[in-house]
Amino acid sequence: MNEKQILMIPGPTSIPQRVMNVLGNPAMGHRTDEFSAIIKDVTEKLKKIYRTENDLLLLSASGTGSMEAAVCNFVSPGDKVVVMENGYFSNRWANINRVFGAEVQVIEGAWGVPADPKALADVIAADKDKRVKAVFVTLNETSTGVTHDIPALRNACGDHPAIFVVDAISGMGVVPLETDAWKLDVVVSGSQKAFMLPPGLSFISVSPKAWALHKECKSPSFYFSLSAAKKEYDDKSSTPYTPAANLISGLQESLLMLEEEGLENVQARHRSYRSMIRAAVKALGLTPLADDAYASTAVTAVVKPEGLQVKKIVNTMKDKYNIVIVGGQGKSSEDIFRIGHLGYVTKSDILATVASLEMTLTELGYPCALGKGVAAVQEIMLKG
Amino acid sequence: MNEKQILMIPGPTSIPQRVMNVLGNPAMGHRTDEFSAIIKDVTEKLKKIYRTENDLLLLSASGTGSMEAAVCNFVSPGDKVVVMENGYFSNRWANINRVFGAEVQVIEGAWGVPADPKALADVIAADKDKRVKAVFVTLNETSTGVTHDIPALRNACGDHPAIFVVDAISGMGVVPLETDAWKLDVVVSGSQKAFMLPPGLSFISVSPKAWALHKECKSPSFYFSLSAAKKEYDDKSSTPYTPAANLISGLQESLLMLEEEGLENVQARHRSYRSMIRAAVKALGLTPLADDAYASTAVTAVVKPEGLQVKKIVNTMKDKYNIVIVGGQGKSSEDIFRIGHLGYVTKSDILATVASLEMTLTELGYPCALGKGVAAVQEIMLKG
Repeated sequence: MNEKQILMIPGPTSIPQRVMNVLGNPAMGHRTDEFSAIIKDVTEKLKKIYRTENDLLLLSASGTGSMEAAVCNFVSPGDKVVVMENGYFSNRWANINRVFGAEVQVIEGAWGVPADPKALADVIAADKDKRVKAVFVTLNETSTGVTHDIPALRNACGDHPAIFVVDAISGMGVVPLETDAWKLDVVVSGSQKAFMLPPGLSFISVSPKAWALHKECKSPSFYFSLSAAKKEYDDKSSTPYTPAANLISGLQESLLMLEEEGLENVQARHRSYRSMIRAAVKALGLTPLADDAYASTAVTAVVKPEGLQVKKIVNTMKDKYNIVIVGGQGKSSEDIFRIGHLGYVTKSDILATVASLEMTLTELGYPCALGKGVAAVQEIMLKG
Repeated sequence: MNEKQILMIPGPTSIPQRVMNVLGNPAMGHRTDEFSAIIKDVTEKLKKIYRTENDLLLLSASGTGSMEAAVCNFVSPGDKVVVMENGYFSNRWANINRVFGAEVQVIEGAWGVPADPKALADVIAADKDKRVKAVFVTLNETSTGVTHDIPALRNACGDHPAIFVVDAISGMGVVPLETDAWKLDVVVSGSQKAFMLPPGLSFISVSPKAWALHKECKSPSFYFSLSAAKKEYDDKSSTPYTPAANLISGLQESLLMLEEEGLENVQARHRSYRSMIRAAVKALGLTPLADDAYASTAVTAVVKPEGLQVKKIVNTMKDKYNIVIVGGQGKSSEDIFRIGHLGYVTKSDILATVASLEMTLTELGYPCALGKGVAAVQEIMLKG
């Protein structure tokens, strides 16, 4: 039998049937009043999830496209920027900024621990002549399963004029984030994470402070021009170039689902998945990479048991049990495997994943007490 | 009854049920061997449609994203480029080049006629010190319904070292194009046209001559970096950043459909749609904007009858008959209406469109002999 596959990766996540049905609907003209109404509706609903009154713009590109927009619309060649680097994706902030000619000061931290607000405060305090134009941080580092302390990092910048830019791609919706209350100037996220859609659509919010910097920006942008996007949205609830129309229609459905469940319940559900997966791996004698204090609710990175190969764990899970998990990224690719638990994940998915992991590890020569991880999950589920 | 809508616009086009089913399939991990096999398969099949052995890369953005890639990967600030401008979309080439700091020489032509190879040859001949780095042209100008003579334009450049860049977004697949035989260095196209998919995915081919220019290029590119895309494709049949995975899966199905029909039959079908629509509008006493000699097989622009409003024609077609056509673009928005006939269009769609247009025009005060346009279509169909 061709069994259904369970995606337990940190995006793309599984897609609810309701959303799949919309994705499989006939094409729609994207320069019509009906489609403008959809764009307006999803934009307003996204603002509620972002917790913002700032402009919120849709970009027809996957998350990295929005990250590029967050650089090329604000950072000019020669500008100084600061990047908090604690993983594969926060490192991408540095790479994009370098491509656009910025002078990048990287505050490097170990992979698997949170970015250090004190280190950022020191750099900001040392910037007497206010040369730093922007600070780039990551809400949820997908490569390590760490959620960074955004309010503490933002506070470290005080009222320095630099804009504060957050990659919230894998965290938005599943981790609390307060764009306005925390004074976050630019926040990017993407369709294939908590929004339970295929990849190819991303979102970016822009504060008045960021718009002021945008006005001075000398970097080139056309497809990702945020002022072009704002103008079309403000004038016509539309987009300057052809949008990824079926993803936007699907987004309307998935936002409705998130609204029905309630954002707080969505986040509570993700916290419970985190507890279950972490309890299970600990019960099996394994070690999560990140400490409980800052563990992500979207993905758990697990330190690979001695003597086993990450690739074999991942392949066995997939080939024998139809469950897709993933190895590490960049310099940690061989050291950890990662179990995603964000988006459209069910209790059954969690139970099956843990049970299959027990069998996989046993088969590969890491003897587990079969059922022990599952029991740890069950105890949490029963408490409800 | 909520009637199905017929999309008669020059993209997005209707989506075949087979493709919709694939678009509505469950998500798939995009870093898996299965997905790499899909990427490899669609890339190889696209090369056949492009008629090229050059590199062919997928970009997760709509067509304008690939146009930006065709600029920012090759044109450095201060470089001189030449743009053949005969419509709204060829004008976009000039705009993107200006954003990236190029010195743009625009060879302006009237909207509704083909770009003039002689004018291009003169500019190229005058460029004694070979300052021109790239020439930008458009295969099929969607805003006017004109197909430009690409071989003649390419010949006008002779063996000048400038690369020759073609926007084939609305023409690829439906208009003959020979990337290699015609020595086209960079050719871009998009998912929502002949490929019968929703928008959000685009394609770009790159010749060895263009790669050589890319090596010297000083413009910033990250999301649209073609060398990053080539490296990931060559190494792993993959993409450097998260791809629009469900569109790529859908593309595999639509490419299969194009293969089953045969590219020559696809193009013959589009030629017959062109004949039918043009015969019909002429029978109704209307004038197509473009002459028969260079009329597009993808879209027909029709000069608006005196005294009628384009918006009213378009709205009546949609509100009363559920058929979506569209007005002009840019400076010709009020002068013409356009009937798209590319992609997944059937004989019934053509018949219904012409019949509904007759009723619409009659109702709006342009008296048509009802059935006369339809009869003109029928005569061509019967010869079939």
